Parts: sequence; structure tokens; C-alpha cells
Amino acid sequence: MVNVVRTNIRRAERAVVDRLQAFGVATVHEAQGRTGLLGPDIRPIWRGARVAGTAVTVSLPPCDNWMIHVAVEQCQEGDLLVVAPTSFSDAGYFGELLATSLMARKVRALVIDAGVRDVRDLTALGFPVWSRAVSAQGTVKETLGSVNVPVVCAGALVNPGDVVVADDDGVCIVPRREAGRVADASAAREAKEAVSRERLRAGELGLDMYKMREKLARAGLVYDDSPPGE
Amino acid sequence: MVNVVRTNIRRAERAVVDRLQAFGVATVHEAQGRTGLLGPDIRPIWRGARVAGTAVTVSLPPCDNWMIHVAVEQCQEGDLLVVAPTSFSDAGYFGELLATSLMARKVRALVIDAGVRDVRDLTALGFPVWSRAVSAQGTVKETLGSVNVPVVCAGALVNPGDVVVADDDGVCIVPRREAGRVADASAAREAKEAVSRERLRAGELGLDMYKMREKLARAGLVYDDSPPGE
Amino acid sequence: MVNVVRTNIRRAERAVVDRLQAFGVATVHEAQGRTGLLGPDIRPIWRGARVAGTAVTVSLPPCDNWMIHVAVEQCQEGDLLVVAPTSFSDAGYFGELLATSLMARKVRALVIDAGVRDVRDLTALGFPVWSRAVSAQGTVKETLGSVNVPVVCAGALVNPGDVVVADDDGVCIVPRREAGRVADASAAREAKEAVSRERLRAGELGLDMYKMREKLARAGLVYDDSPPGE
Amino acid sequence: MVNVVRTNIRRAERAVVDRLQAFGVATVHEAQGRTGLLGPDIRPIWRGARVAGTAVTVSLPPCDNWMIHVAVEQCQEGDLLVVAPTSFSDAGYFGELLATSLMARKVRALVIDAGVRDVRDLTALGFPVWSRAVSAQGTVKETLGSVNVPVVCAGALVNPGDVVVADDDGVCIVPRREAGRVADASAAREAKEAVSRERLRAGELGLDMYKMREKLARAGLVYDDSPPGE
Amino acid sequence: MVNVVRTNIRRAERAVVDRLQAFGVATVHEAQGRTGLLGPDIRPIWRGARVAGTAVTVSLPPCDNWMIHVAVEQCQEGDLLVVAPTSFSDAGYFGELLATSLMARKVRALVIDAGVRDVRDLTALGFPVWSRAVSAQGTVKETLGSVNVPVVCAGALVNPGDVVVADDDGVCIVPRREAGRVADASAAREAKEAVSRERLRAGELGLDMYKMREKLARAGLVYDDSPPGE
Amino acid sequence: MVNVVRTNIRRAERAVVDRLQAFGVATVHEAQGRTGLLGPDIRPIWRGARVAGTAVTVSLPPCDNWMIHVAVEQCQEGDLLVVAPTSFSDAGYFGELLATSLMARKVRALVIDAGVRDVRDLTALGFPVWSRAVSAQGTVKETLGSVNVPVVCAGALVNPGDVVVADDDGVCIVPRREAGRVADASAAREAKEAVSRERLRAGELGLDMYKMREKLARAGLVYDDSPPGE
Repeated sequence: MVNVVRTNIRRAERAVVDRLQAFGVATVHEAQGRTGLLGPDIRPIWRGARVAGTAVTVSLPPCDNWMIHVAVEQCQEGDLLVVAPTSFSDAGYFGELLATSLMARKVRALVIDAGVRDVRDLTALGFPVWSRAVSAQGTVKETLGSVNVPVVCAGALVNPGDVVVADDDGVCIVPRREAGRVADASAAREAKEAVSRERLRAGELGLDMYKMREKLARAGLVYDDSPPGE
Repeated sequence: MVNVVRTNIRRAERAVVDRLQAFGVATVHEAQGRTGLLGPDIRPIWRGARVAGTAVTVSLPPCDNWMIHVAVEQCQEGDLLVVAPTSFSDAGYFGELLATSLMARKVRALVIDAGVRDVRDLTALGFPVWSRAVSAQGTVKETLGSVNVPVVCAGALVNPGDVVVADDDGVCIVPRREAGRVADASAAREAKEAVSRERLRAGELGLDMYKMREKLARAGLVYDDSPPGE
Repeated sequence: MVNVVRTNIRRAERAVVDRLQAFGVATVHEAQGRTGLLGPDIRPIWRGARVAGTAVTVSLPPCDNWMIHVAVEQCQEGDLLVVAPTSFSDAGYFGELLATSLMARKVRALVIDAGVRDVRDLTALGFPVWSRAVSAQGTVKETLGSVNVPVVCAGALVNPGDVVVADDDGVCIVPRREAGRVADASAAREAKEAVSRERLRAGELGLDMYKMREKLARAGLVYDDSPPGE
Repeated sequence: MVNVVRTNIRRAERAVVDRLQAFGVATVHEAQGRTGLLGPDIRPIWRGARVAGTAVTVSLPPCDNWMIHVAVEQCQEGDLLVVAPTSFSDAGYFGELLATSLMARKVRALVIDAGVRDVRDLTALGFPVWSRAVSAQGTVKETLGSVNVPVVCAGALVNPGDVVVADDDGVCIVPRREAGRVADASAAREAKEAVSRERLRAGELGLDMYKMREKLARAGLVYDDSPPGE
Repeated sequence: MVNVVRTNIRRAERAVVDRLQAFGVATVHEAQGRTGLLGPDIRPIWRGARVAGTAVTVSLPPCDNWMIHVAVEQCQEGDLLVVAPTSFSDAGYFGELLATSLMARKVRALVIDAGVRDVRDLTALGFPVWSRAVSAQGTVKETLGSVNVPVVCAGALVNPGDVVVADDDGVCIVPRREAGRVADASAAREAKEAVSRERLRAGELGLDMYKMREKLARAGLVYDDSPPGE
Repeated sequence: MVNVVRTNIRRAERAVVDRLQAFGVATVHEAQGRTGLLGPDIRPIWRGARVAGTAVTVSLPPCDNWMIHVAVEQCQEGDLLVVAPTSFSDAGYFGELLATSLMARKVRALVIDAGVRDVRDLTALGFPVWSRAVSAQGTVKETLGSVNVPVVCAGALVNPGDVVVADDDGVCIVPRREAGRVADASAAREAKEAVSRERLRAGELGLDMYKMREKLARAGLVYDDSPPGE
């Protein structure tokens, strides 16, 4: 079991990352076939942020944040730090000092399958964080982990350089090599939804717009217009 | 097992619904004898809304939102959609397109014992939603359910046409035929609380105002004014 | 088993309480050796408050808030009410009327290992509350408990007169006799962090600032700069 | 809000109840169209029991078991007690003395959406219990509830006299008037499964037996027999 | 923050401990006024054990079991080890080797507010354990904690030398100086229950035996013997 | 998004699988550097089984078990089926008929990040299952997934052909190409533990055996033998 920091990773292209950022999580997740979503316990510590970035991944032991300090050095502008403990913990691995350091490197956000603290300061700084918990309980710096290895974060596989998209709906991972294709599919989906939205706003029913009535009848749905009893 | 859409339901009167809306959940719940409350895991996706509406109910299979599309057509102005899967799921059954469609019909809100998505858009639209989770994970449209049948939603029985009251404290169901009586009881309760509030604000103690001292003494409460040890 | 109200307690000094309030939970918790933190399920009902106060403690039976009414009388300016049921409950023990009464006595906040209601009103009043849940489900007034006895609240021991510090990160208890020492240690910690913050903001790495590189190498960390495969 | 004990209820017929008992929960639940299942947090305190009985229902306040004592008198041979607090609680509402009393009346089991205690004794007595929790924390006897009114228990509606079927898979409610029809459907389902079981045991594939291959192909499933990479 | 091992503690008397062991958790908890119960998430890893012992307490950092090794040396015959991490963790702090060491010292059991592993071996050894989780995830040995200091374990305060009673209902703490009194109260309670048990077994109703009927009537309970509708 | 069944996978060698089976989860997990463990919510439906098998993996939509039927055909003697829904669900995806079919193919066990049913029958059959829940709630057969693709199951990455080791402590994944090395390391670990076990059983302290005393002193641990206060 060697603990390693991979210093040389391929990242998804910035232009594609930025396109994905604009679409948001729900659209991107649908556009790539409903894969890559982190579990719904990972929530933003403040509302309204929508970001995408290239993943720098951290695998670390529970209750030990030493490797986050190591990972900072591997971060570049446009990256997004993804932290996954090897065992469940809701302690606070990350606070305002680490955020200051990441912001100095133009890192876009943090996604962590654990807890964070200093959320008042993080909010004031405008640094976006998605986490499982908020806790003032600190961690130690005793045991190694690895940086830029594949990690499982809240049920999703993340490879370094993958695109991480995050907003109020949660967090979704787009594999690096799929990013362009998924951005195209997202754009197509959004265009289609824009049309649907206008028709629905005008009062058209989804039943008609999506042509569901016949399929419902075939499935045996019964409409009962008998008068209600008292 | 027939899947049915009841198109003809009795609804509580709009005037009573609007009275109940003004009182809010905690008052209404007390006024009707502490019944009808949904479990506390059902939370608003944004804070500050207070609504009441007449229930259009949807019973649907887990991870399948087909029947929500069917239910939209049954909704009228002043209604509030209540969605209950037949098995636990925290997937996202509902998003901004369905909200657009409901708003076109002047539906007041959604209460769902499952997850929703597009919460940034729903918040921007000002459409109130109470849900168990936020998740970008979509659902399928394969299996029938029923509309306007009695459902159990987060532990409470809801009949179509019942009044649903919802605010930051949660969600409470008022049976259609009780609505007038509960509105009256709520008004009485609120009037009484207004008096209490003024007396408490002026510094009077609840112990005196509610005449609790004698009952406490009878129950054996001891006041100990001995000096504290170090 | 006698139920008692201790009317005569020693409180931490106001000046020290106010110093601790300024530091916030994460700093105070670290400064006193990572003890005294309540579990992370205790969350603020609204964001942005930071308070410290002297604990008036309430031990009460589940689903019964009678003793909170008793406790109000024991509260003084600068106190903070700490409520711990003897068995798990997420019902709503506390609402806007009790808050009005506490505010009339200049009590600073409530921490409760259970639920509260009227959160819209509590937010409008600006009364800070940390709780495990929000629920409109009321409680009864039938069974005695005790006031100003030691209680365990969300996993932390609280003695009457201890300092309770609370903010968006959670809640931390500082024993009365430690308060001065902890305030000094907090000040020292904050001064040190101010220096670190400036250096990190200027782009210095924590790896260098905290002199971690040698220890990492000794622990066996490997840097791998081989080119990534496709 | 009147608290009532209905002393005169219709019960499902014993013969039908006993037929349903033999089929067990999974079969009965399927046979009645996947309705009536209690949530999976309701688990047996000991393994291996399979019972069905006619429901005597109890609605009671949280942390108060007074109405269970009232309900005992309403129980007859072949009944099964169903207890639902009006708010969440995991305290221990029921123990060995109440079980002794129910056994003296030939009650078949208890289903409770809360906690029980004395589980070692209950196991030794062979009295089956399905509960949400085990807890030694007792309850009070202060506040009324009702007996033999409709209750929602762990998400399912239960009317007095309904059939309750329970085994290691959980608990399922069969409405009284559906009981005969559901027993017939269960028998049909079981007969069909017996045939399937033999064919599967002999090595036939479900893919063939259920004729799934064509539907899978139409849905677009791809079989890839390329050699694995290293 | 000094980490300390107190080597010289007072223990409750063995004879009293053994009396309490015979009564079990539910009786002892009631007899001491419903205090001292650990939360219901602490469950036995195997069923049927009933033990009591004198507490040797361990406070340790999350995910670090070093102090358990230190605590073993402090254990004597008749002790029961109580382990409480300072932050939530469900990792496996304890396994078969540590159990072997404790059994060599005639320690009676382990209570831990975290996880354990090797449960198959622990069961075969007959060593009783109450824990929050089972997990093969190990811990490190890097950071100090303390032995024989007061700890909060699963919501209950435990002082070294206190009596810990544990069985299938959970775990209850009896303060050392209360142990004799609680044992007497437990005996009285058990004697009274033995009489009740016989009367209930003979078919007498609790309503009569506890003389509840008048109090129920005063509280307003209504018996409705009208014939059921269809 | 293509749904695929890979029919041609490499499997770990049977002899190595059987060696790993003998060691059990805790030993194997340690021996491979504390990686590959599924989360502790995955529990055996009956106690005492210890198995290892080669993974046939199934990725399927929530509440839909169609792909399990597809996967059966891909299973060979010595395999172990691993099922991971793409979104959380605790419905019952698997029961006695599917187990019969797997047993006919000499499949060793099932690991599923969801629910199962017919647990009484599964126990009687002696078919080992590790699952997140037990639920009679069935699933549909409407939507495709994939077989023998990499899946994330309860937080762990599983590739087809990997070794899955499972016992009462949980479930651990050993990558196919690491299996031999991990078996060797497990054997070494077990040999070492056998020696430790004997020394501990004879009363030697871990403090001495692991030579911890000096490191504890360096870390600042204080032994306090002052007499206890009253």
C-alpha cells in the first residue's frame, strides 16, 4: 500500500468545463445518462452557487486532514478539490484557512464526503463548499493518504481531471473524456426544454405535449367522474 | 388493483382555506387537537413561504413520476399537489418544468414525500415546495398509480379536497369537513395567544400567567436555594 | 429521585463570556483541547448568529415542556437556556411565546436537544435557537424535571453557569472555571491564525509554512510525476 | 377532539386470517397490488415468527402508553395489537407485563411504531413483536388517546378489524373487506411460484421462463463478448 | 489539556454489582428514576447476555484506539470497559485480540459508542459487547486520550467505578454511590411486578389492577358501543 | 449511454478466492491496506456465514430488478453477485426464487446495496445475503442497466472478476490482480496474530507486547495515582 501524490494529470479542457458549469447538475446528469451523481446527503453550505471545475482528488484516512494540505500544492486555476475519507466521518476537515489557501490558487470549490467548519467565514468569503456535515470538531495530521488517485466520493467514482459540476441540486461527476459529448447533449436537452417550458407556461398540458394519453390508456388507467360521496 | 383518476372531488371552500393559510401550521395543528401533522423530515426547499391549498393527491410507484403529469390536469386554482410514493425514495420526482405547468394552473405549492430538483429555479420562480430531499436523480415514466385517492404522506392521511397548510414549521392536513371548525378554533387560539404575548413581553412569568405554581408544588417540585459549592 | 430547581448558581463572568462570544465555536473548541462540543445534529434555525451566554440547564421528560416554563424564572440577563430531554424526541418543545418571555429577561439564546416550532416568528424576532429538529408537534405539561442540575445535551456535559458558545458551526460548552483560561488560549490561537491567513492569502503553501515536507517524506509519501496514461 | 374507545368493531373472519398467515408478507403484499406495507424500519424483535391477526388499533400521544392498558380490554382471541404514537418516539412503550396480559387474552402479536423493552423476556415468552426500536426508556400514563379508530402506523393506514400479516420481511395490512379476495390471489400466486421454483431449481433461466429476451433486445440491451483487457 | 490515566479509582462493591446484574436494565433504569440510560443505537452484538460491571472509562480521539490498549492495564476482575470517542465514528475500534486480553483480566464486557469488528470471534468467545456499529474498518494509534476520567457515552455520563448494567434492552449507568439504594429499589420493584404478573396471567385487567378506570373517566375518555357501519 | 452485458470477464483464481474466504473480512481488509470495505450499513441477513466469490456486477436503476434476471445467466460456480442501484432505494429487489436460480448455478452469495425479501426462506435455504435493508416492497422490470461493468457498491468500487469477501463484519472487495498478494499478506497477518493471541491469553499486556510505553510517555501521557476523592 503505497501513498502517492500524482503530480502530472490530464485535466478536462477549461472551455468545456465552463460550458458544463452553465448547465447545472440536473441537466448534466440527465445528459450523460443519469450517471455520476453523488448521494443527496452532500449539500451546499450556502445556497446559490453553481460551479464546475477539474477534479484534484484526495483519499485520506478518517479524521485526518493532512493530505488536504498536500493537495493544495497540486491545485491550479480552475480546479475543484474532491476529498473522500476512507471511512465515514462527520468531523470538520476543512475551514477558512485552507479556503484562503485554495482561493489564492484560484481553486473554484470544495466537495467533501465529510464535515467542514468556519461556515460563517466560508460564506463571507464566497467560497463554495458541498459537504455531508458542518462540525467544529477538528482532525489530526498523522497518517498519509494519496492525491490524484481514483476515489469514491459519496457513492460516485471520481478520477483526477474529471469535471465536477455542483449547484443547489447536488454534485455530478463528468468523466474527462466524456465532457465534450456531455456538454453537447446538455445543450441539446436545454434547447428542447426551453421549448417545452414556453408551451407549459402557456397552459398546454404535459399529457398532450408528451403524447402520454394513449400509453396511459393502454396501461389501463381509468378516469372516474362519478360524483363524490359525502 | 385498479389505477384510477378521480376527476370529480369535493374541495374545501376557498374562503376557509385562506383563513387557515393566515394562521400557519403550529396554530392550526394545535387547534385541531394535534392531528394531521406530516413528519419533520418534510422541509421547505426555501424559507418564508406560508400557504394553504386544497389537496389533489397522487399515489405513485417509487422512482416513477408519470402520475404527476396525469395529476396536473386535475388541478385547479387554489389547489396544492400532494405526492406520496408507495415506497421510500429520495430521487428527484419534480423540477422546474412541472412547476411551470402547475403555476400556469394557479396551483399554490407541492408537498412530496420524496425528492425534488432544480431547486435554484424553483426558488427563483417563487414556487413553494416541501420535500424530504433534494436530488438531481430523475425518475421514469413506466408504471401507473392513482390520482385523488386517499394517500398516506409522511405519516399523515390525506384525502382529496382536504386543506393542506404549510410553512417553515412543516405541513399539516385539515380534513375538508373540519376546516371551518378548525379555522374558528385557530382564531380563538390566536386571540388568546395575542393577550399572552403582550403579558409575557411585559415581563410577566408564564408560571404566574398560567397559574402553574400550585400544580408544581403538588407534583413535588423542590426549590433549593442553598449556596453553590465551589 | 427528587426533582429540584436550584435557584442559586455561580455563573461565569460576563466579561469572559463576551470575549468567548467574539471568538466563535471553532476557535474556542480548539483552544480548550477539543472538548465540550455538542453533536453536529444540533443546528441553528437561522444562519449568522454568534452568541455566548451562561447556561441555565433544564432536564425534562420526553415530550413534556413544563420545566421550560419553570426555568424562565431562573434566567437572568446574559443567560442562555440549555434544554435536554431524558429520552430522544423531535417534537416542538419551544415556540414564539416562550421566546418572547426569555427576551423580556434578556436571555441570549436557546440550545435544545429536541425540536422547536414557530421558526418563522423566531427568525423575525431575531432570537437565536440551536435545535435538533423543527416540528409543529407540541408537548404536554404533566411531569416534573429539574432546573440547574448537570445535564448531558447532545453528547456534552453542561453544568449550570458554564459558558455556552454557539454559531453556524454548532455549539461548544466551556466549563465555568476554565472560561478565562480558554479565552486567553482563544486569543492566542486567533492571533496566530491571523498571521497564517495573511501568508496563505499571499500564496505561501501550508506545506512550507507548517514545515510538513520532511515529516511527509519520513512517513513515506511518494511523489509520482510520470506522464498520465490516456 | 374527543378521545374514544370503540368497543364494537367488525373483524375479518378467522378462517381468512389464518389463510393469510400461512402465505406470509411478501406474497400477500404482491397479491393485493403492492399496498399496505409498513416501512422497513419496523422489524421483528426476534426472528422466525409468522403471524396474522385482526387489528385492534391504538392512537396515543408520544411517550405515553396509557391507552395500551385501555386497549387490552378490547382485545379478543385472534387479535393483533397495532400501536401508533401521534409523533415520533423510540421510547419503550411495552414490556413483559403487558405481553403477559395480552397472552392471557390470546392476542397473537404486537406491531408498534415506537420502541419496546424486556425483549429478553418477550423472546422467552414467544410473544411476537414488530417495533421500530428497543429501549428501556419508559413512558408515562397522563394523556388520553383512542382505541379502534383508523391509525397511520409506519406509513400504512390501519382500520380496526383489518388483517395484519407479519413475518421476518415486515408487516402488511389487508383491509377487512379485501381479505378473502387477497387470500385467493395469494394462493394463486403461490401455486404459480411453486412451478417456477421447480423449473429454476432444475436450472432453467428466468430469462427463458419469463420470456424476457425479446423485450430486452427491443429495449436495446447489448451483449458484448469481446475479450477482456488486462 | 493534559491526558491522564487515573490508576486509583473507587469501584462500586462487587456484591451490589452482582445484585444489579440480576435485575437487568429495564428494572434498574426505572428503579433509579429513569436516569442513566444510553441511547438506543447502542445494541448488543449478540443476544442473551446480561452483565453488570464497574466502569473503567476511556475517552479517546475519533478513529484512534490507542487508549484502549492503555486502559486494559487498569482493568480488574469485575470491571466493564466503557469507551467514548470525542467525535462520532463508526469505525471498528475493538476486535478479538483486545477481547482476549480483557478476558485474561476477567473483564466482563465492553460498551463502546462506536464500532467493533471480529464479531464472529467475539460471539464464539462469549465476550459481550454493546456497540453502535459493526465495521471491519480499523483505527490508528497516534493520539492520546484519557483513562478513568468522566466520559459521556451515547448521551449518558459515566464516572469511573460506576456500575454499568447491560442486556438485550440496552445499557444503563448507576452512579457508584447510588448503587446500593438502586439495588434495593430494584428488588422492591421486581417483587411488586411478580405479583402483578401473576394477576395479569390469570386474566385480571391492568385497568382494574392499577385502578385506572376512574382517572380515565375524569380525563374524558368515551366508550362508544354503537354498531359499526359497513 | 449504452446498456451492456459483458459476457467475457476475467475472474480471480478459485484457489486464491478460497484462501481469502478462510481469512475473513477484517484480516483481508487490513492486509490490503484498509481499502475496499463497503459501508457498515450493509449487513448479513443471517449470522455466521463467511464466503468469498468472484464478482458478477449489476448496475441497475432504482426500484427495478430486471437486470438481476439478466445477470443470473452470466454467473458461474464460485461467483458472488454484486448489485448496485444507481440511486438509493431500500425496496426488496431479490427473494427466494432468484436465490433458487443462483443456487442452481452454484453462486455463493449476494451483496446488494438495497433491500431483499423472503428472508425466512433465504435463511432456510442457507443462501448468504448482505443487504442494506429487508423489505417486502417489490420492484418493476422496465428499465435496462448493465452487467459486468465497474460499479460503486456502498462506497466501494467493484470490477467484475474481483474477489468479494463477506462475513459478519461486513464486505470487502479485493481487486482481481491483487488477490494473490493480499492472500499472502493475510496469511502473514494471521500468523502474527496467532502469536499475539497466545501471549495476550496468557496475560501479557499489549502495552508491553507492542512496546507502547515509551511512545506514550513521549506523547505526554500522565499516570496519576493520587487517591480518589469521595
